[in-house]
Amino acid sequence: MINRLAVIGVGLIGGSLARAMRKRGMVQEIVGVGRDERNLQRAVELGVIDSYTFDFSAAVGAADLVVVATTLGATRDVFRRLAGHLSASAIVTDVGSVKASVIDDARATLGPQLTRFVPGHPIAGGEKSGVEAAVANLFERHRVILTPVNETDPAALATIRGIWTRVGATVSDMEASHHDAVLAATSHLPHVLAYALVDCLAGMSDSGAIFDFAAGGFRDFTRIASSNPDMWRDIALANREALSRACSAFIATFSALQRAIDHRDGDALHAHFARAKQARDAYLQGLQKNER
Amino acid sequence: MINRLAVIGVGLIGGSLARAMRKRGMVQEIVGVGRDERNLQRAVELGVIDSYTFDFSAAVGAADLVVVATTLGATRDVFRRLAGHLSASAIVTDVGSVKASVIDDARATLGPQLTRFVPGHPIAGGEKSGVEAAVANLFERHRVILTPVNETDPAALATIRGIWTRVGATVSDMEASHHDAVLAATSHLPHVLAYALVDCLAGMSDSGAIFDFAAGGFRDFTRIASSNPDMWRDIALANREALSRACSAFIATFSALQRAIDHRDGDALHAHFARAKQARDAYLQGLQKNER
Repeated sequence: MINRLAVIGVGLIGGSLARAMRKRGMVQEIVGVGRDERNLQRAVELGVIDSYTFDFSAAVGAADLVVVATTLGATRDVFRRLAGHLSASAIVTDVGSVKASVIDDARATLGPQLTRFVPGHPIAGGEKSGVEAAVANLFERHRVILTPVNETDPAALATIRGIWTRVGATVSDMEASHHDAVLAATSHLPHVLAYALVDCLAGMSDSGAIFDFAAGGFRDFTRIASSNPDMWRDIALANREALSRACSAFIATFSALQRAIDHRDGDALHAHFARAKQARDAYLQGLQKNER
Repeated sequence: MINRLAVIGVGLIGGSLARAMRKRGMVQEIVGVGRDERNLQRAVELGVIDSYTFDFSAAVGAADLVVVATTLGATRDVFRRLAGHLSASAIVTDVGSVKASVIDDARATLGPQLTRFVPGHPIAGGEKSGVEAAVANLFERHRVILTPVNETDPAALATIRGIWTRVGATVSDMEASHHDAVLAATSHLPHVLAYALVDCLAGMSDSGAIFDFAAGGFRDFTRIASSNPDMWRDIALANREALSRACSAFIATFSALQRAIDHRDGDALHAHFARAKQARDAYLQGLQKNER
């Protein structure tokens, strides 16, 4: 049982974890910290948090668990403001979509409390953000990746693993750099592609007709381009190197396809398309097997 | 009332139009033509068509409406085989995703019967194909684009417009080249992007972990990469020039984003992402307004 949970950044992920833990009776009291008072008030009204404060020392001094769920760009500053006020037994975790940068932030700021920090990433969410979208079952049948470092206290790691497991997630451990490369490929690159596609079409002289005649496939394909631009700017910057490598790999494949189109090379096109369909269908079968 | 409808290619689109017309009592008899006898037998069992034949002259000689719903690569050959056998009053239409190439095919093969050919494209479907997926309501609240040429008989055009309207679609007329540019942007380019992404990830050394940790956003984003490779090879080849232009436009935007990532230019990233989100949210509002 967590006596006092402090959620720094009460948005979709922080709010959903608060809801999930409260629903399962895993926590006594939840205090929210953030910058936007209206959002925090709304979180209290919705029963996501019990109270809020702008004072980090008040929020985290008595907390036995601190969840940092801000955008990535704010992480270092948040850690810095936490650092002096954490109780000796407090555990800190985060939910950032990039892990090496968060670990760098933690090393630069948390000092001896680095051992009590467990870097984590629940692979959940979507194009909606904010506490209004927070739901208790967001993590059920979803994956959570933890990326402990050498210094990470095994007991703290076990506690965080237990919390995610209890709210319904499947927890894996991974090296931070491996996590960042995998997520660059499966999440960050697709977001950049979707943003680039919509931005590209919006800039065409004929964009009115283009969006007018776009069908359902386009809606699904571009859903992630409705994601929060602040959040995704921070992710792109924080995972800069792995993401840029994934972009380059993508351009190589895409350019090969464009060359095949230009050269009317139907066999090459078919080979790319068939390989992709096979991989995608296999992925879908795996997904259905896991009931995710 | 159509006395005899001949559907050349009884797949998702041809089969769904047959179902839709039969359901509304718009047709007396439906004959299917195709290459795959098992598929045609299945279409009879499902009640999509009344009978089938491999003999074009038998199928279309007594037909007052011929719907060509094969893949684009087969269109010219199908037209050639129809040409000598059509009755003087028969109307021919097609459902191809590219229109300039189909019009070229018609000009090269249909001779005087070109006037009775109405090029059309229902913007419906999805990653599933085949007669098993055919449903009577596929076209309801979807768009159909007709791209008549100078020679097109206005009465034939009106008949085809009326048929699509009665099965629930919203029909627009457009220049073929405009259609092809719009569809290159909204449909053909996204398919190439999705295929390229999945093919690229499948080729990575770490593809096991990559697909294992891909979340729901990835599933939606790559849904169209499960589309039929034969069909999409034909579309890419038939709309080669417009599609390649769309690919180049995309690469320009995507490369600008990659440069912004490499240069840690958060403001540029945010500007692209915010523009895309705004355009995508506006598109979604338009879609919801039209209840599509």
